[in-house]
Order: sequence, then C-alpha cells, then structure tokens
Amino acid sequence: MPESIPSWAEKVRAGDRRSLARAISAVECGEAGGVELLKRLFAHAGSARVIGITGTPGAGKSTLVEKLAGDYRRSGARVGIVAVDPTSPFSGGAILGDRIRMQSLAGDEGVYIRSMATRGQLGGLAPTTHDVVTLLDAAGSNVILIETVGVGQDEVEVARLADVTVLLLVPGMGDDVQTFKAGVMEIADIFVVNKADRPGADRVEQEVAAMLSIAPRPDAWRPPIVKTVATTGEGVAAVREAIEKFAAFGSERGLVEQRRREHWRARLLELLRQKLFERAASPRLRDGSLEGLVDALVARRRDPYSLVDQWIEEFGAARVAPGRKSR
Amino acid sequence: MPESIPSWAEKVRAGDRRSLARAISAVECGEAGGVELLKRLFAHAGSARVIGITGTPGAGKSTLVEKLAGDYRRSGARVGIVAVDPTSPFSGGAILGDRIRMQSLAGDEGVYIRSMATRGQLGGLAPTTHDVVTLLDAAGSNVILIETVGVGQDEVEVARLADVTVLLLVPGMGDDVQTFKAGVMEIADIFVVNKADRPGADRVEQEVAAMLSIAPRPDAWRPPIVKTVATTGEGVAAVREAIEKFAAFGSERGLVEQRRREHWRARLLELLRQKLFERAASPRLRDGSLEGLVDALVARRRDPYSLVDQWIEEFGAARVAPGRKSR
Repeated sequence: MPESIPSWAEKVRAGDRRSLARAISAVECGEAGGVELLKRLFAHAGSARVIGITGTPGAGKSTLVEKLAGDYRRSGARVGIVAVDPTSPFSGGAILGDRIRMQSLAGDEGVYIRSMATRGQLGGLAPTTHDVVTLLDAAGSNVILIETVGVGQDEVEVARLADVTVLLLVPGMGDDVQTFKAGVMEIADIFVVNKADRPGADRVEQEVAAMLSIAPRPDAWRPPIVKTVATTGEGVAAVREAIEKFAAFGSERGLVEQRRREHWRARLLELLRQKLFERAASPRLRDGSLEGLVDALVARRRDPYSLVDQWIEEFGAARVAPGRKSR
Repeated sequence: MPESIPSWAEKVRAGDRRSLARAISAVECGEAGGVELLKRLFAHAGSARVIGITGTPGAGKSTLVEKLAGDYRRSGARVGIVAVDPTSPFSGGAILGDRIRMQSLAGDEGVYIRSMATRGQLGGLAPTTHDVVTLLDAAGSNVILIETVGVGQDEVEVARLADVTVLLLVPGMGDDVQTFKAGVMEIADIFVVNKADRPGADRVEQEVAAMLSIAPRPDAWRPPIVKTVATTGEGVAAVREAIEKFAAFGSERGLVEQRRREHWRARLLELLRQKLFERAASPRLRDGSLEGLVDALVARRRDPYSLVDQWIEEFGAARVAPGRKSR
C-alpha cells in the first residue's frame, strides 16, 4: 500500500532522509504525488537562506560549496546542497568527479546533497530546481547551496532563485572581466577570486573593482571581492561573512523581500505557462492527432495561427463541458 | 483610413518593399494586423530555401552572407536576409558595422535585408524570426539567409528553422572543435572554414574531418568542409554548390520534408504555449491582481501549485461564459 501524502509530508518535515529523497524524485519525475507534497510543504518552507554559487566550469565551485557547507555545519546549521550536473557526455565525467570529492561531508546527517541534471545540453537550471529547494527548505535546511554548471543561462537563472549570489572568478582562465558574458557580472552580490595563490589574482581583483566603481548598483550594495584558495579552505570564512553581511543589508533595506517577490512572480507565471500548455497539448500528443495538424501545416493547407486559436477555444470548452472532470 | 488586410497582403505578395517592411514591423510589435496578415500569407509561403548561417562572433558571417547573396542574385534569385543583431550594448557597435558593410547589396531591388533583435541579452533568435521568414517567403524570396549572432542557443535554434545550416569556423580563435559547445557541431550540414588564408586553417579542417569520421550522421549525409576567404569571395561559389548538393540529397531522401515536419510541429506547440499564456495571464497583469497573488506566495499563505490550478479553471470558464467574446 502506498504511503499517504500527509504522512509522507510529515516525514519530510521531520527531516527523514529517505522520505526526502523519494519526494525529490517524485517532483523531478513529475509524478502527481510530487505536486501534492509540494502543495502541503510550501507553507513550511521559506526560512532557509538560499545561496547560489556560480562561475565558469573549473573555477572551483564544488570545492567552495563543500568548504562553505563544512563551515556552516560547524556552527550547527543544517545544510542542503543542490548540485546541477551537466547532461552532456562531454564534461559529465569531470563534474561527477567533483561530486565524489565532496567526501568530507559524507556521513554527516546534517547535510543533504542532491545532484540534478541541467535543463538541456546547453546548460540552464532544470525547471524543478525551485521545487527541490522548497523540499529541502521544508525539510529543515537552514542554508541551501545551489551550485551551477556555469554554462549558458544558468548564472542568471540561479540569481533569480537565490537570496544571494556568489560569482567565482579564477586568474588565468580567460575569465577577464571584459570578456564575461553580458548580464553575468551584474548578478553577483559577492565576487570570489578563487585559486588566489595563482599569478594574476590581483589583476582579476583590480578589474572587478574597476568595473564596480564604473557601474555602482542601484540598490547601493557594494559587492565585496573575496580571495580564496578553496582547496585549503583559505578565505572560506570570509566568504561566509560576506554572505551574512549581504543578508543583513538585504533584509534591512527590504532587498531580500523584493527579490523574493520578483522570484515568486516569475515562478508563478512560469508554472502557469507550463501547466496550461501541458493540459492543452497532452490530449493531442497522446492520441496522435497532432500529426494530422502538422501534415496540414507542411502542406500549407492550414496556418498555425488560426489552428492555435481553434485549439485554445476547444481547450476552454472542454474544461467546462458537463460530466468532464476539470483536473 | 488604414489599409485593409487583404489589400496589404496582396501588396506583400507582389513584392512591394514598403508593404513588406510595414508587415514585418507589425509582426515584430505583436500588432493584431500582423497575425491577420500571417494567416493570409502562410499559404503562399513554403517555397523559399531557408539557409541558416551560424558561427561564433567574428567568424565572418555577415561577409559570407553578403557574398552568397550576391552569388544567388547573379543567377536571378530573389534573396531575403534576416540578420539577428545582439541587443547587448557590448557588441552592438561592431555588428551594426557589419550591417553597413553589406553595401554591395544596397539599392538592389531583388534583395531585402532586415535586422532583428535577439531574444535577450544572452542571445537566441527572437520568437518572431519564424514569422518574418514566412513574410519574406510569401513576398517571393527564392532564398532566405538567416545570420545569427552566434551566442547562447541561437545556433541550435537556427538549425531548427532552416532547411540547411552552414557553420562557420575560423583558425586561431579558440574555435577548436574540442572546445565547441556540445550540440553545436551536430547541427551543421555544411562546415565552412573561413579566413582560410590564415595559419591553422588546415588544422581546423582536419579536426572537423576527424570528428565527422568518428561520429557519422544517422541520415547518411556527409557534411562537406569548404574553405573560404569571404572578404575576397574565394570559395563562396563552392559554399553555394554544397548548399545545392545538400538540398538535392535532402529532398531525395525526404530529409527536408522531415525537417519541415519537425519544425512545424515544434512551432505549433510553441505558438500554443505562448498564446495560451498570453490570454490567461494578461487580464491579471492588466488589472494588477497578480500582485495580490505574489503577496500570498511570499507570505506562504498560498502555494503556487494550487493557485495555478485555480487560475487555469477560471481561464477555461471565462472562455465559454455567455456574453464573453472568446478572442
């Protein structure tokens, strides 16, 4: 007999690791039970600090996440980690290696690590990342660290999801500020120059400082630049301090509140977009009638704009037809 | 008095440049007239050959497009060009410069060039690119060249839209095949090594050839590798020949038909997704009631999953309520 949703939700809230693992899987696979769990657990989430760790592949994100998690653990905080793994076969091996390297956290009941696939070959957060964060939060995490792959749009996406975003730079990797993707420098609340024992670290720091002095942030926060050698743990405490400082500044100025509003506004509209589409499209995907429409388009017998108008009409009508369940 | 849609559509079909320009603007701005035009003109499109030209910024895409267009013009074909410009202020200047450099085509009534913005700061085709191609096609273009920015996902997106995709590589730009973004090498029907007078061109060619021999295509097409110096026109005729060859191979094997089916299937579903969302979301965006929902989410009084369920119910009900127009 399958477990009831209320009992499952209670176990997740109590921090039961197996129940949490099954909940995350249910959410990732889009099972109906996953959504029911989220509906129940959403009210019990929202108190964790969500920290995004981003930067190009090879910058040392996994190592910093591991060390930061250890630092938080020493002060008694419960830590959740979401590590986004690339689905691409090209770099999969290396990043899975990083996962294995987080061994200092293995066996610690106060840390929960979950790897997630990227949205697609070109990176980006999986759409369920938000839901996994909600589950970790409801399960009692005080701090949630999200580590991105550092490809495509995921830096910007993690900044939308997190309360605070940490951007890792490294000397000598072509990471010059000038060549950074447009839009990525702007999302960093805290800059970390990792591998700071390598030549060029000072130059990276100076370039970031110069850029920040040219373009101050509208919210008056001055992003600190912290130098670290994550492998030895050097500077990790300073990163945590910078995070706490930003959190204090942010809650005083209403910044965190504002960011969460923007996040939930975007997330609500995204969920609407996705669910509407799923419910309207799935009947025609299931019964194969989509192919007839595609035939008509390729032969130019129908145009896609009128077809979609008609499809939406039929979708609305079906939802209120007598005798039809509407969910 | 505004022109009637049927008369406007007729003028576009007749190749009237001002009517075409206004039609493209109407489509780009999402005016109701734009969709009405597309509904009428869709049946008259579908005979142009759509060619995507992609590759990293600085690879010489604009120059190749200009020279290819000239080559097609000399054989009497009418040519449409869609040049996707970055919206980012960082590289805008340089690319606008490229536009100006297409001067050999200026004043030629058989060529229509339209610049379009990217979808966002991180690149990607604007969603209306498909519609602009439909308009150029209905206006009598025999060949439509789409030039991407070469950032983010646009290589993959243009491959979905085009009948044939040409990928430009250049020696000595860190363009080594190994470092190419996953998924980009696979989309090329034709490889062009441009700036082939520079050192390293042979090495790039060898690397591509090696990669192709390791991973042959499931459709049995063997992508040719053409060397060009686009600035002098060297090799441009060979690129065109390769395009014609692929087109012949593709129509013989049903490849072009299959690609168009996939294209229109994806496009139809994308339109459905977008229109459903617009119609369901716009009332709450207009009357500001979305903000009340966001308040409830941030305070965790409501959960987003149930909220979206309810929203979809109300949307369906509104579409068939008596006395409500459904469009």
